[in-house]
Amino acid sequence: MAPKEKAVKEKGKGMLNLKVPKGTKDWEGKDMIIRDKIFGTITDVFKRHGAVTIDTPVFELREVLTGKYGEDSKLIYDLADQGGEICSLRYDLTVPFARWLAMNPSIQSIKRYHIAKVYRRDQPAMTKGRMREFYQCDFDIAGVYDPMLPDAEILRITTEILDGLNLGTYTIKINHRQILDGLFQICGVPTDKIRTISSAVDKLDKSPWEEVRKEMVDEKGLDPAVADKIGEYVLKKGGRNLLVELLKDETLTSNESFAAGLKDMGLLFDYLEIFNVMPKLSFDLSLARGLDYYTGIIYEVVTEASAPPAKGHKSKKPVKAVDPNDPDADRSNDDSIGVGSIAAGGRYDELVGMFANSAKGQVPCVGISFGVDRIFSITKAKMLAEVRANEVDVFVMAFGGKGFTGLVKERMEVCRMLWDAGVKAEFSYKVKPKLPQQFAAADKNGVPFAIVLGEDEMKEGKVKIKEMGLPEGHPDKNGVDVELVNLVHEIKKRIATKKELESDKVSVLADDVAKVVLDGEKPTAV
Amino acid sequence: MAPKEKAVKEKGKGMLNLKVPKGTKDWEGKDMIIRDKIFGTITDVFKRHGAVTIDTPVFELREVLTGKYGEDSKLIYDLADQGGEICSLRYDLTVPFARWLAMNPSIQSIKRYHIAKVYRRDQPAMTKGRMREFYQCDFDIAGVYDPMLPDAEILRITTEILDGLNLGTYTIKINHRQILDGLFQICGVPTDKIRTISSAVDKLDKSPWEEVRKEMVDEKGLDPAVADKIGEYVLKKGGRNLLVELLKDETLTSNESFAAGLKDMGLLFDYLEIFNVMPKLSFDLSLARGLDYYTGIIYEVVTEASAPPAKGHKSKKPVKAVDPNDPDADRSNDDSIGVGSIAAGGRYDELVGMFANSAKGQVPCVGISFGVDRIFSITKAKMLAEVRANEVDVFVMAFGGKGFTGLVKERMEVCRMLWDAGVKAEFSYKVKPKLPQQFAAADKNGVPFAIVLGEDEMKEGKVKIKEMGLPEGHPDKNGVDVELVNLVHEIKKRIATKKELESDKVSVLADDVAKVVLDGEKPTAV
Repeated sequence: MAPKEKAVKEKGKGMLNLKVPKGTKDWEGKDMIIRDKIFGTITDVFKRHGAVTIDTPVFELREVLTGKYGEDSKLIYDLADQGGEICSLRYDLTVPFARWLAMNPSIQSIKRYHIAKVYRRDQPAMTKGRMREFYQCDFDIAGVYDPMLPDAEILRITTEILDGLNLGTYTIKINHRQILDGLFQICGVPTDKIRTISSAVDKLDKSPWEEVRKEMVDEKGLDPAVADKIGEYVLKKGGRNLLVELLKDETLTSNESFAAGLKDMGLLFDYLEIFNVMPKLSFDLSLARGLDYYTGIIYEVVTEASAPPAKGHKSKKPVKAVDPNDPDADRSNDDSIGVGSIAAGGRYDELVGMFANSAKGQVPCVGISFGVDRIFSITKAKMLAEVRANEVDVFVMAFGGKGFTGLVKERMEVCRMLWDAGVKAEFSYKVKPKLPQQFAAADKNGVPFAIVLGEDEMKEGKVKIKEMGLPEGHPDKNGVDVELVNLVHEIKKRIATKKELESDKVSVLADDVAKVVLDGEKPTAV
Repeated sequence: MAPKEKAVKEKGKGMLNLKVPKGTKDWEGKDMIIRDKIFGTITDVFKRHGAVTIDTPVFELREVLTGKYGEDSKLIYDLADQGGEICSLRYDLTVPFARWLAMNPSIQSIKRYHIAKVYRRDQPAMTKGRMREFYQCDFDIAGVYDPMLPDAEILRITTEILDGLNLGTYTIKINHRQILDGLFQICGVPTDKIRTISSAVDKLDKSPWEEVRKEMVDEKGLDPAVADKIGEYVLKKGGRNLLVELLKDETLTSNESFAAGLKDMGLLFDYLEIFNVMPKLSFDLSLARGLDYYTGIIYEVVTEASAPPAKGHKSKKPVKAVDPNDPDADRSNDDSIGVGSIAAGGRYDELVGMFANSAKGQVPCVGISFGVDRIFSITKAKMLAEVRANEVDVFVMAFGGKGFTGLVKERMEVCRMLWDAGVKAEFSYKVKPKLPQQFAAADKNGVPFAIVLGEDEMKEGKVKIKEMGLPEGHPDKNGVDVELVNLVHEIKKRIATKKELESDKVSVLADDVAKVVLDGEKPTAV
């Protein structure tokens, strides 16, 4: 913070509390531009797959949220009772989506995305990106379909988004609720302990087995023999090889739930092979995820850039237990589970029915939620160099000697011509601006071209186009004179050429990425 | 509402109130797509002029909003006191912007836009578009500049947006606070009555002079002679001719405030001439606008499509008085003032100082707020025909005779190829879909191309590209066979050609509009 800013803020305290509410922030400057670029990339992928967006109110009737979030309901922001309906700010985007589906039974299938803010009265940890107002980016496919087809497309979409954002190496950890439930049955976990044991197992991504076993036995009262049996399985991870291995184990496959989950997984792998997603996948029997409402496959994406601490290295902070009823699909900011996950989701076939109050109103869904704030933190440094403060392509300026009028009307006239032609252009809001100030303004925003008006040149019907930032010695370093009547054509040509060169650069990079993806090689961070 | 929907909603009532809160709505389907297109058009214009966006929290500390909205403060939504800070939902985007400027004194100038929802506990009138949660779209230029330069650009931007949205004929009514204040001084209005008389004058857009005079004299206790003097002036409207006429009147020009306002207006007209805005302008001495914080020019945009009732025709509803302290820049939904206005704004040089608590913290601003909901209502019917339910360009389908496998993996493979190439594509989530169902799905969303896989053709390495909706007898009506290896190239070529044809159509229309604008002719609705 600049000293002046600080002073104003402190001074302000006595008179008016000049700040935003705890856990919220103003998005501004290049952060805002980077965030918009991330949203743009994500939205492009959703649209490529035929998705549409819906926009629900920022608050819901309180009863809509009631009973959906377990203990975390205490984190819901309530509106004051000012007479009339009792409302609360939305806590996530999934429950409003399910409410919308239940309200519109004529819509039996949809691919919908929703990028919007949600609200949680959590203890904010701003530097870690744990905010009270933050963005979620949800994509869900609702409808009755043949098994694993929408599930496969969700994971394909996930890879397109992560590749599109150049997030570097990442892994999609995948498991299946029925596999997990079957496994616990086989090992002899009492039915009433399944959720709590499941939540302990989920911690294996950052705690060693010994610790998790201790929690199960000492804290949760599980029979040590049962715990050991669980240990034989949940440390397993792999790709199709693991599937093949499990299929050979008759103790496992004789369990109905386990067998059903495994069958889904096999079909999904076949589809993901075609979609070229398998190289990213890790079939991980320890992945449990906290939400009660999942009924089929579940997944979580981790990147190298946000990897959890290696196993055996205890976190310095005490691990906060996560309520197994926590319905939040984005747990990327939660210390206890899924540190490093930047997206997570799964299949939930029974949530919509909670609203519809009838089996007929049931709409099966599968979805994913991207942790946009986490993605922002990872990509910001890399993207900072690529974005400009604004999108202006031309700064229209003037210069002159003694008696210089400033040519303000001429600058405005040229801007009008450019705007009419759709060219992004600015001019100085000074009647007589100095040339260095005008160049400084253009430079500050990284504007690629200047159009310079001089009184003598104007008399001849000419203006100068100057490409900014050309190296010394470049033939056009001092600008090129063009006829005013050709100006729009000339500048559009130059802007298009420059953009083409830049997008060629980008697509060469994209080709590299595509190549390694197609070859199934580990892509390198670009 | 479909009967099924109604039934579910009614049934739901007994168990769970399945609805959105009063005055809010879910945006979905083509409405959502049209709204996004409107936002896109508006944003493109802002960016063309070098604007950037900021995003402030949806709630603010209550004290930030306190004292900014006069009596309308009662419409502010408060958050419940759940311990900690006391917050309220934002009521508009102007006060958060001023708060942000005051908090960031290092930012002394900015062109910023902000499109976001605001909240008012007003009596909702959904069919009229008066909602409790609704969008505002604000654009403001902050900074110390030479007179009238940013003001002129704001009005230029306004015309670019309205032309871009094809809103048909519209008029920008313009006036100046100092002209109005000077006029009231000249006519002998007591200082303490200036605001209330100003608010009466503002009603001249839909009430005849006799009624307004009656209000001033009977209700507000103005001397009838003073009222008559006001009447001599405030019914005047015109273009530069009115300016010339007023400049000749020494009674007027001898008033310091009036003369200063007139000088601004003259300079502004010079600039607007260059920007080709003058043909849209109506210098209207009755335009007052309710907000106390305006200090310079003020303006309001009306369109034919949303024109107020003709003068002399009394509104059937009683006119609700508007609080002169109402700081809302979008009064398009307010019966008492500016019925039919789709955008409004003005210069406010002293609002930021209210937060900074020091003259040093003052940042002069000029801005405009677009009533997006009103614009949506006007353009919806016209745009409905132009938008598709989603953006998919290709539906990948399969057909076959007896023993048809459904070719699901082949359809997925083709989709993967298309997605890899950035083509927007979908396929049916059925393993063995029927061909008519696949065509129906493509038709429903207006997808322009189908790729049809047949078992025999696949063996020869061929697939069929079928352009949807070709007329009977067209040579390609039954599709064109292409080699699978050339498929991506062939389909991209066809999509590009089709898009080019469509955008040619659009740009021919746009050229027509541009032509009439350049010629200063009245553009016809396209």
